[in-house]
Amino acid sequence: MSTVGKVIKCKAAIAWEAGKPLSIEDVEVAPPKKGEVRIKIVATGVCHTDAYTLSGQDPEGVFPSILGHEGGECRTCKFCTSGKTNLCSIVRATQGRGLMPDETTRFTCKGKPIFHFMGCSTFAEYTVALEISIAKVQKEAPLDKVCLLGCGVTTGYGAAVKTAKVEKGDVVAVFGLGGVGLSVIQGAAACGAGRIIAIDINPKKEAIARQFGATDFVNPKDYPDKPIQQVIVDMTDGGCDKTFEAIGNVNLMRAALECCHKGWGVSTIIGVAASGQEISTRPFQLVTGRTWKGSAFGGYKGRTELPGLVGDYMSGKIKIDELVTHKMKLAEINKAFDLMHHGESIRTVVYFN
Amino acid sequence: MSTVGKVIKCKAAIAWEAGKPLSIEDVEVAPPKKGEVRIKIVATGVCHTDAYTLSGQDPEGVFPSILGHEGGECRTCKFCTSGKTNLCSIVRATQGRGLMPDETTRFTCKGKPIFHFMGCSTFAEYTVALEISIAKVQKEAPLDKVCLLGCGVTTGYGAAVKTAKVEKGDVVAVFGLGGVGLSVIQGAAACGAGRIIAIDINPKKEAIARQFGATDFVNPKDYPDKPIQQVIVDMTDGGCDKTFEAIGNVNLMRAALECCHKGWGVSTIIGVAASGQEISTRPFQLVTGRTWKGSAFGGYKGRTELPGLVGDYMSGKIKIDELVTHKMKLAEINKAFDLMHHGESIRTVVYFN
Repeated sequence: MSTVGKVIKCKAAIAWEAGKPLSIEDVEVAPPKKGEVRIKIVATGVCHTDAYTLSGQDPEGVFPSILGHEGGECRTCKFCTSGKTNLCSIVRATQGRGLMPDETTRFTCKGKPIFHFMGCSTFAEYTVALEISIAKVQKEAPLDKVCLLGCGVTTGYGAAVKTAKVEKGDVVAVFGLGGVGLSVIQGAAACGAGRIIAIDINPKKEAIARQFGATDFVNPKDYPDKPIQQVIVDMTDGGCDKTFEAIGNVNLMRAALECCHKGWGVSTIIGVAASGQEISTRPFQLVTGRTWKGSAFGGYKGRTELPGLVGDYMSGKIKIDELVTHKMKLAEINKAFDLMHHGESIRTVVYFN
Repeated sequence: MSTVGKVIKCKAAIAWEAGKPLSIEDVEVAPPKKGEVRIKIVATGVCHTDAYTLSGQDPEGVFPSILGHEGGECRTCKFCTSGKTNLCSIVRATQGRGLMPDETTRFTCKGKPIFHFMGCSTFAEYTVALEISIAKVQKEAPLDKVCLLGCGVTTGYGAAVKTAKVEKGDVVAVFGLGGVGLSVIQGAAACGAGRIIAIDINPKKEAIARQFGATDFVNPKDYPDKPIQQVIVDMTDGGCDKTFEAIGNVNLMRAALECCHKGWGVSTIIGVAASGQEISTRPFQLVTGRTWKGSAFGGYKGRTELPGLVGDYMSGKIKIDELVTHKMKLAEINKAFDLMHHGESIRTVVYFN
């Protein structure tokens, strides 16, 4: 029996309020309106940004909502037609408030409207998204792997390849070795970086960092009396060509900038800092030739460029399997957040049915 | 009678200590050592950086010294051979401490050694500089004009043309309309910028800004209740493609970044902030596609590229004459600082004999 045009009842993980575990509930998913698509979710990654919003620190976080996320492009706004950015202004207008463009939501639970999240809400068996937010990928792609291209892998890989444009022989430093940071490393390695310094306070991350292409591993805890930027400058004859912050810590964003080489070093911020926090440095750092920039979703346009990235995974150019440290059913999703908070997982993939 | 190899006695303006007026004194200028050149100074500009160092706020300021400045390139160090920067590490090593590379000084006055400044010390009839810091320019160039290419004009023009690489049609904002800011405007105009917004709290600057190519003038004092970045964003449909800070005020450096367009705006810091001051912003500003950079001497290599800039002045492509609002003799040099502090001059040229 066709469900087109009808409400679908299914399971979803609801974030009723900030700081509380998710709750698995029966939800109603309304049919898509004009320009929208209802999608069956097979698998979804669990990202630090989901945890960040759930914690209540995200000023744009609205509750109750269904978390899990990704992006889109309209191809008509000033941003999409600029050729200079992947940030579409159309999807942002209502997406930041957890609503579809008609200012309503497609989810209800126990009679209450449930907000969308980042235009995706992938922690549900069915979701509704804007057609322009959807990328059609190869049929043979394993969805329990390529779902990570919806955020973490693409964000890190693109920050190296597209935003910072790592060049052959570059000396690179990556702060934070989660799914994003490790993907920066594989992006930098794909660009032919000469040296890739992986930085994390968890010594267990060294092995996988090297597997992804890191040539050096630095644990800041081994240098209690020396700022980490000085450690990196000292081991690189004056600093790095390209550095990346993939944690969301404003102090490390500063450290990443300040361990760039004078004259030409470029530091890229990827991590999302807690609300209200600010980055700072002496302006002399920039006047003497360093550049500070940032990257969102790796600079990739999902609709246009995701199929190519899926192809890169299928051909072995992009590694994803190694990042999936845990798999579990929707009912166990809170365990995924626990593992992440304790630094015991890189990525957990949650699958449905 | 040749003076080669002999000490020359001449007049110079000595900065005996921070915060005090310069004092015109008889000084002895020693003959140049290996790799050095003794130069007769015909004319020199007076720059805000001279005033900044004289004020005592410059942590690298050493006294007593002869101020007035410029740069150089060795063509052999890691920086010079990188092809990515104009900052030479050879000249920096001792220059920052007011000494020649042999750790001594060529100036003495009343039996005391007098420090060099930025490898130049142009506030003297004769000075000694490193050969690699010297650019040979066209014989017919009027020295009382092209001396401004030794700092202000080149710094601003290059920040637009070389550092930020203003493109045809770009919307540009320039904070601060001194000699540097006005030269940013002419650089942006030369690149074909579509709109150039000149910003200064001195309404007298509007006329000359328009003469240099500004299409709009904004006085922040006209908007007492609105942050200047919001004023600029509102008048540019979301922000500027390229912005510049040519004052040295860390709050305006932040404003200049934050009135850049999301997705692709680039802000360039040119001004020198007071010692210990820091710039800050929310990292979200960078993650959403803005870039923060800086520029020193406009990214130009003096030795190689100054003759081309002198040619651009001679052919009318670069304006300098309009910036020289005052001319005076060395004996009046303290008046030049007074005029600058009171915003009554753009550039004063001091000439000798």
